[in-house]
Amino acid sequence: MKSQNGLPRLSAVELAAVSLVRKMGPLSRTDLAELLDLSRGSVTTIAGNLVELNVLTEVGHGKSEGGRRPRLLDVNSGLGFIAGVDIGATSVDLALADFRGEILERRSEPADVRDAPTQVLDRVIDLITNMLARQGAIEGDLVGLGIGVPGPVQFPSGLLIEPPLMPAWDSFPIKDYLRQKFPQVYPAVDNDVNIMAMGEARVGGGKEIENFFYIKIGTGIGCGVIARREIYRGCDGTAGDVGHICVDYNGPICHCGNAGCLEILAAGPAIAKRGMVAADDGKSKIMAKRMENNNGKLTAEDVGNAAAAGDQEAIRIIAESGRMIGGVLAGLVNFYNPRAIFIGGGVSKIGHHLLSTIRQATLRRATALSTRSLKIDYSKLGDDAGVYGAIWLAIENVFVPA
Amino acid sequence: MKSQNGLPRLSAVELAAVSLVRKMGPLSRTDLAELLDLSRGSVTTIAGNLVELNVLTEVGHGKSEGGRRPRLLDVNSGLGFIAGVDIGATSVDLALADFRGEILERRSEPADVRDAPTQVLDRVIDLITNMLARQGAIEGDLVGLGIGVPGPVQFPSGLLIEPPLMPAWDSFPIKDYLRQKFPQVYPAVDNDVNIMAMGEARVGGGKEIENFFYIKIGTGIGCGVIARREIYRGCDGTAGDVGHICVDYNGPICHCGNAGCLEILAAGPAIAKRGMVAADDGKSKIMAKRMENNNGKLTAEDVGNAAAAGDQEAIRIIAESGRMIGGVLAGLVNFYNPRAIFIGGGVSKIGHHLLSTIRQATLRRATALSTRSLKIDYSKLGDDAGVYGAIWLAIENVFVPA
Repeated sequence: MKSQNGLPRLSAVELAAVSLVRKMGPLSRTDLAELLDLSRGSVTTIAGNLVELNVLTEVGHGKSEGGRRPRLLDVNSGLGFIAGVDIGATSVDLALADFRGEILERRSEPADVRDAPTQVLDRVIDLITNMLARQGAIEGDLVGLGIGVPGPVQFPSGLLIEPPLMPAWDSFPIKDYLRQKFPQVYPAVDNDVNIMAMGEARVGGGKEIENFFYIKIGTGIGCGVIARREIYRGCDGTAGDVGHICVDYNGPICHCGNAGCLEILAAGPAIAKRGMVAADDGKSKIMAKRMENNNGKLTAEDVGNAAAAGDQEAIRIIAESGRMIGGVLAGLVNFYNPRAIFIGGGVSKIGHHLLSTIRQATLRRATALSTRSLKIDYSKLGDDAGVYGAIWLAIENVFVPA
Repeated sequence: MKSQNGLPRLSAVELAAVSLVRKMGPLSRTDLAELLDLSRGSVTTIAGNLVELNVLTEVGHGKSEGGRRPRLLDVNSGLGFIAGVDIGATSVDLALADFRGEILERRSEPADVRDAPTQVLDRVIDLITNMLARQGAIEGDLVGLGIGVPGPVQFPSGLLIEPPLMPAWDSFPIKDYLRQKFPQVYPAVDNDVNIMAMGEARVGGGKEIENFFYIKIGTGIGCGVIARREIYRGCDGTAGDVGHICVDYNGPICHCGNAGCLEILAAGPAIAKRGMVAADDGKSKIMAKRMENNNGKLTAEDVGNAAAAGDQEAIRIIAESGRMIGGVLAGLVNFYNPRAIFIGGGVSKIGHHLLSTIRQATLRRATALSTRSLKIDYSKLGDDAGVYGAIWLAIENVFVPA
């Protein structure tokens, strides 16, 4: 049976076979039978079918274990192209990959999500079409398309629900719009932190980890949650919304309407604001000078630079954010018992003080049992986590549209 | 292939078929083929095999859809007996069930987990053996045994790790000990809150819910986490340890060594202590009188009774605990986006004030999106959540020993 994307509709057990081959590299039919807990005969039928459909392909022979050397199966990289798109507040990152997830071309350019969705998405469509053309391919050769957006997404519909950064996108039918250009594709849309966690899970530091957090620290603070190697979205797609966990009931009012949310107290703008106050109060010459040269403004990055230059006030300001973030993470570690926490996002780059205070605060306050094997580190993929995650979200939705 | 418990070792797809039949009641082969996404031929083979192994049994005919009325398959309740054991700090609850999870006999008696594990487990073994005898069965007829214990359990080994309430049980090989008596059984051991959540998931208020919390409020505060209908244990089996989330960095020192844990500030003993302070301070005549009649002591239940009688101070004390619990839950709701929170445990019975303040505090502080469809209510199973959960943990481990 062929589905609309020109690719076969696979049965549950065929899908299981394909994802095993993806995950574990070239496998023999005997390997597959063992891993799937099926008879050799059933696997021969399944594999034969997948090879005939061009989903799997023979890639030479494995080691002999006494008899004939077994033929090995791998995913057919040439089955079609996959596009991964990571839309940020002020930029769009894209990559075109083959069917095995190897990136063929990577692009990045400024964008503004406050623009109309059609404007941003038209540009995305153009960029994808151009990347396809450079591979000698046409629109019809695209088989998967994954997109991350900076706002709350209802999964699987892919609709943004009251997104604060991009109100024009509220309930805009992103998938339908993209399918006008790529009718053969089932796009998968998720929020940006989820796809970053997905990237980390499939090709980053989380490859061997069952359960972990990806924390993005930028203008806001968000968390992608991986449970049993899959994105955990919760019941309405809002899981991981850690930025609005309360750290101070008497704190300042957040844009969400509540007082003392982690985000309003610890994210980039809070660091910048505390830096400006310190500069105004004469507590930091470095930051005061930087502010003078910058129209009376500081960014979190400026505070990070001052900390790197040894400015004690800047170090203190960053440590304050780190302690608040670590305090919230400690509670979540008790609750979730993850194996790792990966930190990413623009503000994570402001120097090692932030990471080290997050680490300290988390380890100090979480229980001994839950932190015994806990690793807290930077994202292994850096700025590529989003596009990789978008690619893998697309790949895993090719045969089972979300 | 037969495994040690005398039951067949099932393949992945056979297991999937059995659990579908368990979940969805009697099913025809056609239903199964659709639900498993397999060909009618494959399902006929699988079902034939399961019937021959006595795991499934024919139970009459379904409605005709034009042709012959299809034969229906159900789980064979007579395949063997299942015991569910819920060991509490001061009691042990047991039940014997048939293979479909229907309880045949239920027992409850005082116990003390500070006793040696051999002493407590010998009594458990006696009780199970007697229950089997009353069904006309012998030890060898037991095929599944699930146990909940009030401490941190390493799953799947079933070892308690530094359990504060039951130090004599530290790393005691519970499973091996039980198998000396029931060598054919693979016991499954988990912590008490996890099995309560399991009970709620399989036969309680969580039957139709993908993701939820079960909160047990007693001497401590614990949480069983259900993710995609299964117990979520985290990477080391410690998930759900919400009692040690910090609510006040300057609070009293908890037995875990940290300051201001939820448990030390909001659980039963904290409610009792605040009640005694209020009585001493002349703020509550009802509680002062009760304390006088009770050797100068109050329990959380006493405070609950005073609140039920309209004592404003008792109501205030309970509301304080509810607000702290709700504040922590609000953060966890933002993070996890569950569909429901079920409240159980001894202290949950002290009257509606606790539940209503938990509800208010959670809904006020969690984000609008994550609470839109959130339900917060008492456990539907009450004191039976543990034994039901132990039974279902056992049932689901019969064919795939943990």
